[in-house]
Amino acid sequence: MSHHFQTRVYYEDTDAGGIVYHAKYLHFFERARTELLEEFGVSQQDLKNSSNLIFVVKSCNISFLKPAKLCDYLTVKTTVAKLKKASVIFKQEIYKEDVCLASADILITAIDTLTNKIKPFPQDLLIIFNKL
Amino acid sequence: MSHHFQTRVYYEDTDAGGIVYHAKYLHFFERARTELLEEFGVSQQDLKNSSNLIFVVKSCNISFLKPAKLCDYLTVKTTVAKLKKASVIFKQEIYKEDVCLASADILITAIDTLTNKIKPFPQDLLIIFNKL
Amino acid sequence: MSHHFQTRVYYEDTDAGGIVYHAKYLHFFERARTELLEEFGVSQQDLKNSSNLIFVVKSCNISFLKPAKLCDYLTVKTTVAKLKKASVIFKQEIYKEDVCLASADILITAIDTLTNKIKPFPQDLLIIFNKL
Amino acid sequence: MSHHFQTRVYYEDTDAGGIVYHAKYLHFFERARTELLEEFGVSQQDLKNSSNLIFVVKSCNISFLKPAKLCDYLTVKTTVAKLKKASVIFKQEIYKEDVCLASADILITAIDTLTNKIKPFPQDLLIIFNKL
Repeated sequence: MSHHFQTRVYYEDTDAGGIVYHAKYLHFFERARTELLEEFGVSQQDLKNSSNLIFVVKSCNISFLKPAKLCDYLTVKTTVAKLKKASVIFKQEIYKEDVCLASADILITAIDTLTNKIKPFPQDLLIIFNKL
Repeated sequence: MSHHFQTRVYYEDTDAGGIVYHAKYLHFFERARTELLEEFGVSQQDLKNSSNLIFVVKSCNISFLKPAKLCDYLTVKTTVAKLKKASVIFKQEIYKEDVCLASADILITAIDTLTNKIKPFPQDLLIIFNKL
Repeated sequence: MSHHFQTRVYYEDTDAGGIVYHAKYLHFFERARTELLEEFGVSQQDLKNSSNLIFVVKSCNISFLKPAKLCDYLTVKTTVAKLKKASVIFKQEIYKEDVCLASADILITAIDTLTNKIKPFPQDLLIIFNKL
Repeated sequence: MSHHFQTRVYYEDTDAGGIVYHAKYLHFFERARTELLEEFGVSQQDLKNSSNLIFVVKSCNISFLKPAKLCDYLTVKTTVAKLKKASVIFKQEIYKEDVCLASADILITAIDTLTNKIKPFPQDLLIIFNKL
């Protein structure tokens, strides 16, 4: 199962080269992960306030294959490539129709905001990640 | 008639104060104007490539009433406050449920990308703006 | 006395119109206010952590006069237009050489992060603002 | 020889987690590459307008080691890890004092804006990249 999220390219996402600014793809990926959690009933605002948990991106390996452009309507496809107790690697791709524009492996951990240390994912998050 | 557009607050939109970074509201307003045009079949990418027309924000008067926060689901309401041949003032407001978080008057003109001079709006844009 | 701060335009600041994205000017203004405080020995990180004080932009009236472009080296000029016990209006302008590209009045208050209420500026901030 | 560039962390760079938003490191890296070229007398605006050349990031492998925070004063260190006729891999690291916060390998090519095809770096760029 892969999660699909759609997002439009606005002027804010583009640069003077006439294409989407490269760092913006990381924003699109993060939006997709947020919506994925929201669809499973998980709000990152609640995680932060109630469980003192925030997600932290630890590494990212991204390939930019073709440029996205102003007004493009993009689909971000997300799967879990590797899941451990306290880290997860998401495989995320951005498509314009059936053409892949960017592909990334993104390693994420959870941090306890009180101790600033890595904490294992709670059970409900593990169940969600296991579905992907 | 007012146009309604919805957008989520992601981590990218927030700052270390724990709320949405003030300049981001201008992004939300611009996204709403883009979607408004898209719903009437107008693509700014086409305007740029086919008609050498881009919109330019000339002034903005914005009040920040209450802070938006991570994961909030916001509604941007857009109407036309004043329409001339070559300029339009949009009245735009951002709501979280029925609470207004920000309100702005945004003056926009169209520029010819070949001459860098103001050009009157084409007839189809005037018709759209007149509906709002 | 006006405070001067210089900043370069990078690709990240531009959009597909080939000019600086309008919301970015608010970033430039905020950078200048931060550096102004830093030059007087005030760190906003310390204000937040030690005094539970963050600045909040309450309103902004900005005119975009001429577009800034990629690689431009800009000067942000900052003065205080009006100072009260718990609010300040900064007058800020962006120059490319001696041409003014943008001008804004920006109303700012200080918020207590524990109560989320407006708090008066501490004495050392009032002294700084009074110099401008 | 490695190139050093310094940049401050402003509110715009942080997120509600209280640290710098991960995608922002790509901005810092790109600012450093721009300043590197500027120091050798090369303006990307001129490259775009006179030589129809823009740089495109093709891939990026980035590790986030420790978080940067509001008001931090960061140093971006840049070297060339691999240079070919039409592509270059930059090794870039972000330091706070002597602690490395992030490290990346960034593969860049040059595109001809008229043909949208990869074009070899002009001789003056090769000379600059060879020095690093």
